[in-house]
Amino acid sequence: MSSIIKPRVLKGFRDFLPENEIERKSVIKKLENIFENFGFVPIDTPALEYTEVLLGKGGGETDKQVYNFQDSGKRDVALRFDLTVPFARYISQHLDELYLPFKRYHIAKVWRGENTQRGRYREFTQCDFDIVGVDSPSSDFEIMLMMQSSLFKLGVNDVTIRFSHRGIFNRMLETLCLKDKTVEVLRVVDKLGKIGEVKVVELLEELTTTENALKILEFIKPGKNFRDTLDKMIFLSGGESDDTKRLEEIYSYIIDNKIEKSFILDPSITRGLDYYTGLVYETFLNELPEIGSVCSGGRYNNLASLYTKTELPGVGASIGLDRLLAGLEVLGKKSELKSLTQVLILVLDDKIIGHYHKIATELRKNGINVEVFPIKKKIQQQFKYADNKTIPYLIFCGEDEVASNTINLKDLNTKDNYEGISISKAIDIILE
Amino acid sequence: MSSIIKPRVLKGFRDFLPENEIERKSVIKKLENIFENFGFVPIDTPALEYTEVLLGKGGGETDKQVYNFQDSGKRDVALRFDLTVPFARYISQHLDELYLPFKRYHIAKVWRGENTQRGRYREFTQCDFDIVGVDSPSSDFEIMLMMQSSLFKLGVNDVTIRFSHRGIFNRMLETLCLKDKTVEVLRVVDKLGKIGEVKVVELLEELTTTENALKILEFIKPGKNFRDTLDKMIFLSGGESDDTKRLEEIYSYIIDNKIEKSFILDPSITRGLDYYTGLVYETFLNELPEIGSVCSGGRYNNLASLYTKTELPGVGASIGLDRLLAGLEVLGKKSELKSLTQVLILVLDDKIIGHYHKIATELRKNGINVEVFPIKKKIQQQFKYADNKTIPYLIFCGEDEVASNTINLKDLNTKDNYEGISISKAIDIILE
Repeated sequence: MSSIIKPRVLKGFRDFLPENEIERKSVIKKLENIFENFGFVPIDTPALEYTEVLLGKGGGETDKQVYNFQDSGKRDVALRFDLTVPFARYISQHLDELYLPFKRYHIAKVWRGENTQRGRYREFTQCDFDIVGVDSPSSDFEIMLMMQSSLFKLGVNDVTIRFSHRGIFNRMLETLCLKDKTVEVLRVVDKLGKIGEVKVVELLEELTTTENALKILEFIKPGKNFRDTLDKMIFLSGGESDDTKRLEEIYSYIIDNKIEKSFILDPSITRGLDYYTGLVYETFLNELPEIGSVCSGGRYNNLASLYTKTELPGVGASIGLDRLLAGLEVLGKKSELKSLTQVLILVLDDKIIGHYHKIATELRKNGINVEVFPIKKKIQQQFKYADNKTIPYLIFCGEDEVASNTINLKDLNTKDNYEGISISKAIDIILE
Repeated sequence: MSSIIKPRVLKGFRDFLPENEIERKSVIKKLENIFENFGFVPIDTPALEYTEVLLGKGGGETDKQVYNFQDSGKRDVALRFDLTVPFARYISQHLDELYLPFKRYHIAKVWRGENTQRGRYREFTQCDFDIVGVDSPSSDFEIMLMMQSSLFKLGVNDVTIRFSHRGIFNRMLETLCLKDKTVEVLRVVDKLGKIGEVKVVELLEELTTTENALKILEFIKPGKNFRDTLDKMIFLSGGESDDTKRLEEIYSYIIDNKIEKSFILDPSITRGLDYYTGLVYETFLNELPEIGSVCSGGRYNNLASLYTKTELPGVGASIGLDRLLAGLEVLGKKSELKSLTQVLILVLDDKIIGHYHKIATELRKNGINVEVFPIKKKIQQQFKYADNKTIPYLIFCGEDEVASNTINLKDLNTKDNYEGISISKAIDIILE
């Protein structure tokens, strides 16, 4: 009748095969667990919003990365491109129903029409967590602790969280009378890791004097240790300030909690052109620094100024799930499970299928994931199915076993056979 | 500078406040657990696909409910409106990487520009589970068992799963020479619950003779019990067939598993104009039948004929999460938790904030969800925060307690105070 349509997905979009989706779900569950461990609550917002709400007035035409269109009711709508803007809108809209300080997490897909040649996806998952409505060193520190705990939970212990303070950076530029060139300087500083010190100075010299360029380089180079780096930052930013005191305070918490191994004060961290005003952080896998930061964030002055006159300072971070998953895979920390099934009940006899399902229910009541092969087929094909799904145990049973209320169990890993055992014995073996 | 943009969401779209999102996540986790218990594997597909892939060639202009548009690369794209079509595309595309029979589940959002006046949402969540690549009574039964188990897992034991067989219904129409009016008859039969028997016969009389109309009514009325209903279906469809044998087989499994209380053979269940060809099911909450079926499905001949010449018979069902959640709320089965936090550590002294975080880490290591209040504030405000988040325990601690390495614990439910206890004692009390 109709011709076949070629099954395919859009460029930059992906299907997830079971083994990948099992891994994604497992990582997401662990992150949710950490976020809840820290008292963060989940929220959700629509994928589609008014373009004006997401991009501001008149922003619709300018941002080509955003998927926007007119819906059938002639509304200008857009798919969310991050979780921060919807959160700003959300908290402004629901301030009366919420309470401050508000600690939320949000794990969801976002869409951007990025250039896919750089290995970027147009649909990807972000995991954001923020503390809004309070400006305290304790909150700044809590986010850092969560970044570290999240990675530990995923089995990645060898991480470095590099942090700095945008306020001190800005003050340094002020002392050099370069405040009006902040954006340009940030753009150059951001490239330090890629192009190296010499090239950075060259580029800075296009913006200012050689003396200033060298001072900026001096500022962004980490010192021997926290104290050394901070002293240099204090000196080059014109003396102590609330911002430098905050860094000291946070460092004292780090010491109290004996986690200094994971944290480095690194003044080259600025989070580029972002809207951060205070602490900023990036997280690197020490065995895989080249993939870049897997979790970044910082403090901002006013989250929701687009939507409300209520001042909402906050601090937060975002885990790039796709980059992190790619990293875990390279580090050999990806599970290769094709399913979570523990037992396959083979169908030897059509006439006792009801009985097979009964056995399955017994096992499930004990928390065991079990399936009944859906139809009588050659035994090799049923074995193949167990293999495809990496199922470790098989249960065999015919009419004799029904009569004696027993089963046969095979452990495919050890090749052990347990013949004529009771269901409860089988449960013990599987759960062991 | 810029004027305030009114924070708002599109009609038919929703924000989820923490208490609602906690509930949604908890229900989804339980469903995932059941699906994995039955050996189903998760998959995911893109939210956005080629319009042609989702709607077939030339389908783009006709379906106003679908959100479709041109992306910046001039591709015709659309947001998925269900999880079945993407699954058909997915399995055709990845057949070489998968294996049959394939049992997958998929829980995800879908979008339809529905009329919101009927209380429908334009963004909603579906939970689909299907067994593809096999046509067996065991699979038909397994889906029924999963429907029941899913609701049991959510604490809803009082459910009725009504099932029938579209093949037998079609054969009945054939015996009445009404095959070419199948669509019209289905449309009328579907209204039985709403308009009653008299009105159904009236409408059927517009399509055929009074005798035929009465025969159809006779067919769709359930009998006294399974046997009685089936006998009538056999008689009115012109005798026994593979389809009636399948119903008998499935019923024998139901008996074997002693779950007949939840299942009723109801020949008025046809799943309307859907593409089902075999078993069909709908699930009703007995205390709340008026909200309609919360989980429906059935068997289809060929899932993916649009994309592949490989025949893929299957059976599956879909839980309408939003309707189910609304039902759970009415039944008083909705949790009212505003957070999952178990302990709030109050900030009595600014100078020991690092210590507070250390205590929190100790508790978290024992699986306890705990937060440190983010800043020193009046004690009443910190209490209020615990109240807002329904946190049951408070920990107080000043410099004296730091010196003696103890804490004070307050149980807000019982009003019990535990003063000067060790952290490990506190952990025991909280976990108890």
